[in-house]
Amino acid sequence: VASKLDVLLTPQGASPADVAGRVVVVIDVLRASTTIAVALKNGARQIIPFADAESVVTRAKALERRDVILAGERNMGPVPGFDRGNSPREFPPEVVEGKTILMTTTNGTPLLASLAGARDVLVGSYVNFSAVLAYVRAAMRGGTDVLIACAGRERQFSLEDTACAGRFVRHTTKGLPTVELNDAARASLLVERRYRDDLGQLFAESSHGRALVEAGYREDLAVCAGVDSYPVVPVYQERQITKLGPDRER
Amino acid sequence: VASKLDVLLTPQGASPADVAGRVVVVIDVLRASTTIAVALKNGARQIIPFADAESVVTRAKALERRDVILAGERNMGPVPGFDRGNSPREFPPEVVEGKTILMTTTNGTPLLASLAGARDVLVGSYVNFSAVLAYVRAAMRGGTDVLIACAGRERQFSLEDTACAGRFVRHTTKGLPTVELNDAARASLLVERRYRDDLGQLFAESSHGRALVEAGYREDLAVCAGVDSYPVVPVYQERQITKLGPDRER
Repeated sequence: VASKLDVLLTPQGASPADVAGRVVVVIDVLRASTTIAVALKNGARQIIPFADAESVVTRAKALERRDVILAGERNMGPVPGFDRGNSPREFPPEVVEGKTILMTTTNGTPLLASLAGARDVLVGSYVNFSAVLAYVRAAMRGGTDVLIACAGRERQFSLEDTACAGRFVRHTTKGLPTVELNDAARASLLVERRYRDDLGQLFAESSHGRALVEAGYREDLAVCAGVDSYPVVPVYQERQITKLGPDRER
Repeated sequence: VASKLDVLLTPQGASPADVAGRVVVVIDVLRASTTIAVALKNGARQIIPFADAESVVTRAKALERRDVILAGERNMGPVPGFDRGNSPREFPPEVVEGKTILMTTTNGTPLLASLAGARDVLVGSYVNFSAVLAYVRAAMRGGTDVLIACAGRERQFSLEDTACAGRFVRHTTKGLPTVELNDAARASLLVERRYRDDLGQLFAESSHGRALVEAGYREDLAVCAGVDSYPVVPVYQERQITKLGPDRER
C-alpha cells in the first residue's frame, strides 16, 4: 500500500484517526514554531507549551526562577509580566542557554494537545526545514504515514503555514512516487509553488504577516524567512519540546 | 473602506462575525449545490434542506406524498427508502416539475444552519456559476461584504470546492481593485488557476471525485463540470431554497 502524506490546514481538523501512529509535523511559521527552533538551537534545554498564561505562572512557581523563562504572546506582544513574547529575536544564546522555557502561544499550543497518539510530533518551520525534512523522509521510507498540521491563526487558515506545509510535501515526495496525498496536500503544493522563491511576498500577502508589520515586528519576518538558518529537530514528547540529538536518534 | 471578500475552506470556520450582513455563497460542487441548481432549473418549486434523514421523513408525513420528493445521500447513494439520492441526474424536469424536494446531504446542510445573520445565502457551483456571480458582483459594488463558504467533505478541506470558490474570487474582483481578500481567498485563487481549464483533472485529483468514480457515479462528474449549464440563482431563506426570479429581484 502507498504511504499517506496528509496536510491539515486548520487545527480543528485533527481527529485521532488522522494522527494515530504517524509522524506529525506542526507548523506555525509566524511565529511559534520558528521561535521554538531558534530557542533550541541557541541552547535552551527544553520548551514546555501551555494552553494559557495562568498555567505558565502556576508551573513557574514550582521551579527555580533563575532556571526558567516565561514566554508567551498576547496580541503579538509579550503577555504582561512575562520575560519574553513570541518573537524569535527575543531568544538569543545569552538568554536561553540551559534554560527551561515555559511558553504559551495563541495558535500552536492547543494543536499540540490534540496530537496524542502520534508516533512522533515534530515542530517545523522554514528556519529548520531541511533538518525536519530529513526525519520525515526517513519515516516515510520506513512505511510510516505523515501528517503536516498547520496551526493557522486564530483557528483559521493561514497562507504562510500552508506554503511551508507545501514545501514539506514537495520535498518529501521527491523520489517517492507512490505517496498518496489528501486534497489539502495537493492545494498546499499550489500555494508553495507561488511563493517558493519569494517568502517576503508570502508574508506581505498573508494577513498574519501584515498584522506583525503593523505591530512593529517587521524584522521578525526576515528571521522567519531564513531557510535552514537554525538546523534543529524539535521533538514534542511527554509534554515538552526538546532537541533531537545524536543520543536521541531512533 | 475596502469591501471584504473572504473564503472559508471548511464548514466549521463560520463564526457569526464572518457572516453578519454578508452575501454568502455556499459551495458543495460534488454534489449538493450542483444538484440544487439542476433541480430548481428543471422546475422544482423549492428544496428544503434537513440535517438528517429522520427529519425528512417527519416533515414528509405532514405533506401530500405526491407533492414531495425525498432526497438524500448516504455513502454517496440514496438513503434507503428515499425517492432520490444526491445525483444531479436523478432530478430531470419530468420528475421535479412543481415538486417540493426534502433533502438531506452529508456536507451542505449543517453549513446552511450556521449562516443565520447573513444578508443573503446563495447556493453556488459550476453549473450556475455566472448567474450567482452576477448577483455577488452587484452586491460587492453596492458595498456589501461577501463570504464564499466551502462545504467540504466530511468537514474536511475539499479541492473542488476550493477551486470553485477561487473562480468566484477571480471573477468577483475583476475591475474591483479595492477588494480585501483573506488568506483562504488568496489560496483559492492559486488552486483555481491550476484547474480552470481542466475540471476533469480537478475531479480526477480530488478525493471526493475519485470516490464518486469508484461508487459508479462517473457520469455525475461531467454534469458537475458543465459551467453555466443550469443558469439559476438558488436563494436560501426561511429554511428553504427557491429560485431567484424576476419577481424576487431585489
